[in-house]
Amino acid sequence: MQKKPRILITNDDGIEAPGIYSLWKSLKDHCQVSIIAPATEKSGVGLCITLREPLHIQEVKWEENTPAWKINGTPADCVRLGMNVLLKNPPDLIVSGINKGANSGRTVLYSGTVAGVIEGTMQNVPGIAFSCHNFVNPDYSLCEEYIYPFVQYLLDHPLPKGSFLNVNFPDEPKERIKGCKLAKQGMSYFKEDPAKRVHPEGHEYYWLGGKWEQAEDEHEESDVHLLNEGYITAVPLQIHQLTDHHIFQTRKEHFSSLFS
Amino acid sequence: MQKKPRILITNDDGIEAPGIYSLWKSLKDHCQVSIIAPATEKSGVGLCITLREPLHIQEVKWEENTPAWKINGTPADCVRLGMNVLLKNPPDLIVSGINKGANSGRTVLYSGTVAGVIEGTMQNVPGIAFSCHNFVNPDYSLCEEYIYPFVQYLLDHPLPKGSFLNVNFPDEPKERIKGCKLAKQGMSYFKEDPAKRVHPEGHEYYWLGGKWEQAEDEHEESDVHLLNEGYITAVPLQIHQLTDHHIFQTRKEHFSSLFS
Repeated sequence: MQKKPRILITNDDGIEAPGIYSLWKSLKDHCQVSIIAPATEKSGVGLCITLREPLHIQEVKWEENTPAWKINGTPADCVRLGMNVLLKNPPDLIVSGINKGANSGRTVLYSGTVAGVIEGTMQNVPGIAFSCHNFVNPDYSLCEEYIYPFVQYLLDHPLPKGSFLNVNFPDEPKERIKGCKLAKQGMSYFKEDPAKRVHPEGHEYYWLGGKWEQAEDEHEESDVHLLNEGYITAVPLQIHQLTDHHIFQTRKEHFSSLFS
Repeated sequence: MQKKPRILITNDDGIEAPGIYSLWKSLKDHCQVSIIAPATEKSGVGLCITLREPLHIQEVKWEENTPAWKINGTPADCVRLGMNVLLKNPPDLIVSGINKGANSGRTVLYSGTVAGVIEGTMQNVPGIAFSCHNFVNPDYSLCEEYIYPFVQYLLDHPLPKGSFLNVNFPDEPKERIKGCKLAKQGMSYFKEDPAKRVHPEGHEYYWLGGKWEQAEDEHEESDVHLLNEGYITAVPLQIHQLTDHHIFQTRKEHFSSLFS
């Protein structure tokens, strides 16, 4: 019998979020699953790592004796402590989510869910992030049947080092999901519009927030466009080499002479 | 008389760090400077934005009546509140730093200093991040003469939308700085090695941390290599489009048939 693949599950909505339970349910029979997730919600923390607070690890009782821990930190902290303290062997794959709300377009670098996978990618462990395009009342059960096929695909067809998959499920009932498409990262973004409030003592404070703004030039192959069309989108993202090569090639001379 | 360019200064070492004072000193006579920085150190927070805590803005008294504020948040929070609450006009350029310690190689996505610039780039405001390759006892005065020439260069030769400059100063006395080079992002990285401690109550906790690990395949044009050689390095980074285009082109068919 072939050994089951080792999967580390994390998320940014916290260990008690229903989305991470759906991931576990979808993978538990096919894989050797461990769960390490933030003790509380960590939406929007991106690749934040906790350097100025001590990190506490607490074992969590999970169904079917699945090893599970919660940590008072971020998804990237969870992956770091997983790979360096908790797990005997590095996972074959990191699976993060299912996030409440889409992580499409240019929002990916803010997402803690995506960052859990980025942290693995930094350490050459492949990964896949799952998000559901519904902030209010996501039905994760609709996503569950798609999770393992994605995981199996990645295990059978590994991506090159430095790359990972970012998957979003559309906000559609099953019969209206049009299928799955490999997509490019879209250009759309949240437009910040902080909300002002007044403290009981009289001074003002702010809540960050805003509205999703569809980019005018969103092209037909973008995840934002295809997600709205009703497709499950999978974007291959790479974060090992962010150099703008065109600028590098065309401006080298400028810089050599900048201080001479 | 030409109007002075509007510069927003931020950092991740906090408003009281000496590095941000050096930025101000270098730019105050040439530019119309505003300062918005975290109230406390925010190293390693990356592009974290604060969604679950209220943000408080406090005016800070700064020399020469420079407008300055501190915020109980991250560098990205500072830029968001700057552009949406505090500044009457969007800045021409965001300048972040000078960071205590290098932000080279694959560490850039963890850096709050770099993230202050990324946040501007997301909103189509160009930017430049400065860091000094000395964690222990950086001499920012050595960097000061180079700051404005970089700023002037970027104002005179704008980068395309989505790109910004990441500059690192070597840990060398002035006479041993070899000059400036446009570089590619290096592959080197911090190898995590959490430190275990025991709480007075008896349970264990951890501090994240680790050692810089030079990548074996670090090439001659990388910032990591050139910084060690004694060059000031400037890497043009782009974060608007992270799609791995090779994977996209070669695997499209796989995904169309994944669930059919």
